[in-house]
Amino acid sequence: MTIYDKVRKAITEYQLVQDGELILAAVSGGPDSLAMLEILYELKDEFNYQLHVVHLNHKLRKEAKDEAEFVRQFAKSHEIPATILEYDIPALLKEEGGSVQDKAREVRYRLFNRVAEKVGATKIALGHHADDLAETVLMRFLRGAGLEGLVGFTARSRGNLIRPLIYVTREEIEAFCDEKGLTPCYDPSNAKPVYLRNRIRLKLIPMLEEEYNPNLRQQLVQMAHLLEEENLILEEYVSRIFENVLIKEEPEVLSFDLNVMSKKKPAILRRILRLGMEKLKGDKKDFYYQHYIKMQELILQGSPGKMVYLPDGYILYKGYKMLRLGKKEEILNQSLRQYTLTIPGETYLEESDLLIKAEVKEGQVLVKKDQAALDADLLGTALLIRSRKPGDWFYPLGLKGKKKLKDFLIDEKVDRFERNLIPIVTTLDGQIVWVAGYRVDDRFKVTPKTQKTCILTILKGGIKR
Amino acid sequence: MTIYDKVRKAITEYQLVQDGELILAAVSGGPDSLAMLEILYELKDEFNYQLHVVHLNHKLRKEAKDEAEFVRQFAKSHEIPATILEYDIPALLKEEGGSVQDKAREVRYRLFNRVAEKVGATKIALGHHADDLAETVLMRFLRGAGLEGLVGFTARSRGNLIRPLIYVTREEIEAFCDEKGLTPCYDPSNAKPVYLRNRIRLKLIPMLEEEYNPNLRQQLVQMAHLLEEENLILEEYVSRIFENVLIKEEPEVLSFDLNVMSKKKPAILRRILRLGMEKLKGDKKDFYYQHYIKMQELILQGSPGKMVYLPDGYILYKGYKMLRLGKKEEILNQSLRQYTLTIPGETYLEESDLLIKAEVKEGQVLVKKDQAALDADLLGTALLIRSRKPGDWFYPLGLKGKKKLKDFLIDEKVDRFERNLIPIVTTLDGQIVWVAGYRVDDRFKVTPKTQKTCILTILKGGIKR
Repeated sequence: MTIYDKVRKAITEYQLVQDGELILAAVSGGPDSLAMLEILYELKDEFNYQLHVVHLNHKLRKEAKDEAEFVRQFAKSHEIPATILEYDIPALLKEEGGSVQDKAREVRYRLFNRVAEKVGATKIALGHHADDLAETVLMRFLRGAGLEGLVGFTARSRGNLIRPLIYVTREEIEAFCDEKGLTPCYDPSNAKPVYLRNRIRLKLIPMLEEEYNPNLRQQLVQMAHLLEEENLILEEYVSRIFENVLIKEEPEVLSFDLNVMSKKKPAILRRILRLGMEKLKGDKKDFYYQHYIKMQELILQGSPGKMVYLPDGYILYKGYKMLRLGKKEEILNQSLRQYTLTIPGETYLEESDLLIKAEVKEGQVLVKKDQAALDADLLGTALLIRSRKPGDWFYPLGLKGKKKLKDFLIDEKVDRFERNLIPIVTTLDGQIVWVAGYRVDDRFKVTPKTQKTCILTILKGGIKR
Repeated sequence: MTIYDKVRKAITEYQLVQDGELILAAVSGGPDSLAMLEILYELKDEFNYQLHVVHLNHKLRKEAKDEAEFVRQFAKSHEIPATILEYDIPALLKEEGGSVQDKAREVRYRLFNRVAEKVGATKIALGHHADDLAETVLMRFLRGAGLEGLVGFTARSRGNLIRPLIYVTREEIEAFCDEKGLTPCYDPSNAKPVYLRNRIRLKLIPMLEEEYNPNLRQQLVQMAHLLEEENLILEEYVSRIFENVLIKEEPEVLSFDLNVMSKKKPAILRRILRLGMEKLKGDKKDFYYQHYIKMQELILQGSPGKMVYLPDGYILYKGYKMLRLGKKEEILNQSLRQYTLTIPGETYLEESDLLIKAEVKEGQVLVKKDQAALDADLLGTALLIRSRKPGDWFYPLGLKGKKKLKDFLIDEKVDRFERNLIPIVTTLDGQIVWVAGYRVDDRFKVTPKTQKTCILTILKGGIKR
């Protein structure tokens, strides 16, 4: 297969381009991206797409300015419109710290996406090739990655990134550049065996090919494709399960059915959570194996009300019948909207995953924990349920006197995060009759004079779907 | 975790033993199997199982006899019954050739299984530990394995093999032997860096841990467990699909619904075929990636009647609506049992995946390819359909005269393997009226005198489930 055939194969197999599409080609000026641009340029009419070049002058090396100029000229000579960006990455590093390579990549993708949007490009083409893939797979393997990690990267990922050179080797790219008289810029940092990737490329792979398997790179690429297919099946399978366990989707919080989740196999559980994080964050960055293991433990063994802290301010919160994944503040500062509870009747409080039931019985009735017995004749036909409000007060049964709700909850040692989710049951004109689950108001208690008792019951996880 | 806790963990997590079970412990006398035996012995009452030791004197080294004696004594001192086997592997190698390690393993498993059956053991315990697993995973990775390969081995595989030391490292085993005063036999061939596994253990892993990842072994073991879980999900998922695409299961041949199979994703297709081979052979040995790729190509692009040759005399045969996987002779020498076809009526010939239909129309009717027009009044109320028999003859239309069926089929260039599956349609008293799909008999043809035409039609892949 020629280098063109390999690019054609990638384009067709992975449907990299659509008719009439505008492709943003990310060109550093190095051999990979230059060869990619040249080939994409030559196949333009065959597949009917347009090109726009983007280059970032990252100011990381003294040659950076010349490289930008080189790319501008190259695009011009091919009559391809180009956007040349500048970003002071050294300055950013000084300010924020972090690894050069990570920061540069982060900035690059963010800016390229912005350019794509501006010029109307629907794909961003990257110059990654088969050897890059083999190196990535080996690097991930040495770190002990899971299936997804071992897939490396694919010809098409995160929707708009495409890699037309995925089947092409570095050797083929170099031969192509020679043959076409292309004179790419070489990044001297690629030749320094200080970065892990460079050491893998320059030392480890040659050694392994010499002593263990002469076809290593080829076979790692084949392995990556195989694993990609396997992973795809798992992804599809799990995304169907995901839809079944997801009860509610808010912008910052996903709620899952705990009962169903806790019956899933570990690997499925982890993939559901991963998919959830991806939905919330747009990526799975900074989430590692141990986070998933902790979440798994919480789901299978933790008690309700417990949570796992995750990177970037996310948590997984275990309720009675619900699991909530999302931003900590969103989950924990959630308060109840106002509900009306007719007597008799029941109402499900979605935010705290509780069901409150009101029944009426003749005479004076004894109740259990999680129940309140009130004098029905003092209540009227309905009650209101809401979250606590500043200034709330009531007459806690047994305390003889009025007390601020806030002080009461502090005395009861209710976790700060839990307070907003406690249902405050009031009369229609706003008098608190029950701090649900905690204390009845003295004014509405059952007395020897009570003729009918209103029994309020909390059902934890009284889920309604 | 102590070494005992790690063994307990493996036993519990993978349900390695059942109450009252007899375990056959395979003991070479080396540190791994000796430590395993000692630990299994000490945990015997806790998990309530019995032990029986098995050892194979493979006659490969001069120390082999002493090792056998050592194991016998060790078992005796623990009052564990032991079976010491002898097998002249050098002689076998002389005769059959092959690699020492492969042959020794093959003989070992076969003999151990036999002993297990004889003494009533339901599991065979092997001394493989975490470092063995890491080495296996690395070895497979260097060969470019797929997901299943990268899983390495599991704590419980092929039903009766268990590996209680899967969480234990070599270092822990050595410390345990020291502490318990166990004096294992050391196999000098383990120290020679000539075998691939030894080179990986003695050279590659230490180098990678020194230069790339100090926790490599640990993380490879963790990776293997992760991939095992992912693989398990895929296996379950595919085995459900398998049941849906499998139309017929004979001892040597599996028949699949071609239409459904050809719509499956490559990775699923390959796993279905793999599962099929496992069902047929009991293992997947000798089946490699390229075999699955060839099968995939046949299914997706091959024409009906084509086949892929597989190791050990197996083939995959593509019919019209069926795929057949199994022993070549079974698939290709299959013949039709006798069917009765009433007129009018239809009958499905399972073995050749064809439906034959008989209709009657007034007058003389013209027919298409794959149809026969016969004089209905000459046929009676029913026909028989069967495979060719030795001595068959008929009067092929257009040839003027009698011809041996065998010669006719040779002249028609029908593949030898296809001949048995051609439906031979005869009258109830045995006269051939149609060699279905090839030629009508002159005696039963439609003539100007014909009043009613019997039209016979072959429907390829006239599948009935």
